[in-house]
Amino acid sequence: MKFHIVTLFPEFFESPLKSSLLGKAVASGTVTVNLINPRDFAEGKHRKVDDTPYGGGAGMVMMVEPIALAVELIRATEPDTHVALLAARGKLFDQQLVRDYVARYKSITLICGHYEGVDERVAEHVANESVRLGNFVLSGGEPAALTIIDAVARRLPGFMGNSESLQHESFDEAASENSADTGRPHFEHAQYTRPEDWRGHKVPEILLSGNHAKISAWRKENAAKTRFH
Amino acid sequence: MKFHIVTLFPEFFESPLKSSLLGKAVASGTVTVNLINPRDFAEGKHRKVDDTPYGGGAGMVMMVEPIALAVELIRATEPDTHVALLAARGKLFDQQLVRDYVARYKSITLICGHYEGVDERVAEHVANESVRLGNFVLSGGEPAALTIIDAVARRLPGFMGNSESLQHESFDEAASENSADTGRPHFEHAQYTRPEDWRGHKVPEILLSGNHAKISAWRKENAAKTRFH
Repeated sequence: MKFHIVTLFPEFFESPLKSSLLGKAVASGTVTVNLINPRDFAEGKHRKVDDTPYGGGAGMVMMVEPIALAVELIRATEPDTHVALLAARGKLFDQQLVRDYVARYKSITLICGHYEGVDERVAEHVANESVRLGNFVLSGGEPAALTIIDAVARRLPGFMGNSESLQHESFDEAASENSADTGRPHFEHAQYTRPEDWRGHKVPEILLSGNHAKISAWRKENAAKTRFH
Repeated sequence: MKFHIVTLFPEFFESPLKSSLLGKAVASGTVTVNLINPRDFAEGKHRKVDDTPYGGGAGMVMMVEPIALAVELIRATEPDTHVALLAARGKLFDQQLVRDYVARYKSITLICGHYEGVDERVAEHVANESVRLGNFVLSGGEPAALTIIDAVARRLPGFMGNSESLQHESFDEAASENSADTGRPHFEHAQYTRPEDWRGHKVPEILLSGNHAKISAWRKENAAKTRFH
């Protein structure tokens, strides 16, 4: 999978793309990430990428032209890249979208907004869709881009050592379908590892029983319970 | 605001904490971020932090003791730190939680899970709550921690140059209260900046009118429309 990130802060991504499992995926070529700065496509001595909003109001708005030029350069060699603008006005990112991305695209371009927002003509005429990470506001799209790349990358063959790990997990496959109705995710079951007794708090006995049918039933029941601290 | 991040991959955070607005907030002391590695609290030559799950199954599970010791060290000097485990089984992060965090805490500890999961006794006996970023699965809690820090930090006095920017935004204040009922966020209005005519696509005329009452009405109506590409 090839990712292109259109960002005013390419240096943001430096260390995350080198660490942990995502770092390994980048090193092995399972994922490639290309960083592109709209400022490189801006005009004038000051390479201006933002300006005040029409109609007044606080803050600055990112201009459409530098972003459009950056995306056009990507599309020149990868015409089928899927271009998502990361914006509070977009549709909600979830595991269904992760599956769609993995199934449908070989190249994904993520545009990171910044400042007060992005000129609406980016959403209307440049991007294929607008996506928001959640019902919260960020200072820029960069943490959202990183989160989306991680969520998509871990579904790719070769990302994880153990492909079995992808099976019984919280929001995947049928589980996610269920949650579409209730608005509540289908939770993963609780996990325990050594020691059996930690400061007096013991692992549920059934998990030590060796009875696979009972363990499986316990896990199903446990996963169905929502436990909010 | 003081953040502590309990993570097996502290190097992940290096460049994000130096760039963009979050980098400025760290440099100015508006936010401090302390990285703590559970591996430093693990025993034995190999400093083991994970083990196989009781009851069988794929992957490894993070052990409770190294995490508990890391959190205890933080609590030794900051007993009131709010400890959130980032986990798929947690409650959903949103702008209401951002406001709560800003209003209630001066110190927040985020525990990043990894591998197949975290021993359930961390959620039960170590953390104050469990939080999930969204209905999707990540390879680890690090991108979620970064996202939460950005969302919380930008609400702090001194984070943004223009505090006015915090007012008319997507999920804040009353807007978020509305969305609690409908499950749909209250969208920000579209923003436009120069040029007036971009490749034939024009800024809505009303925004150029100078009529503030009409502009305000247009923005309200525009914000109320959900536009999903």
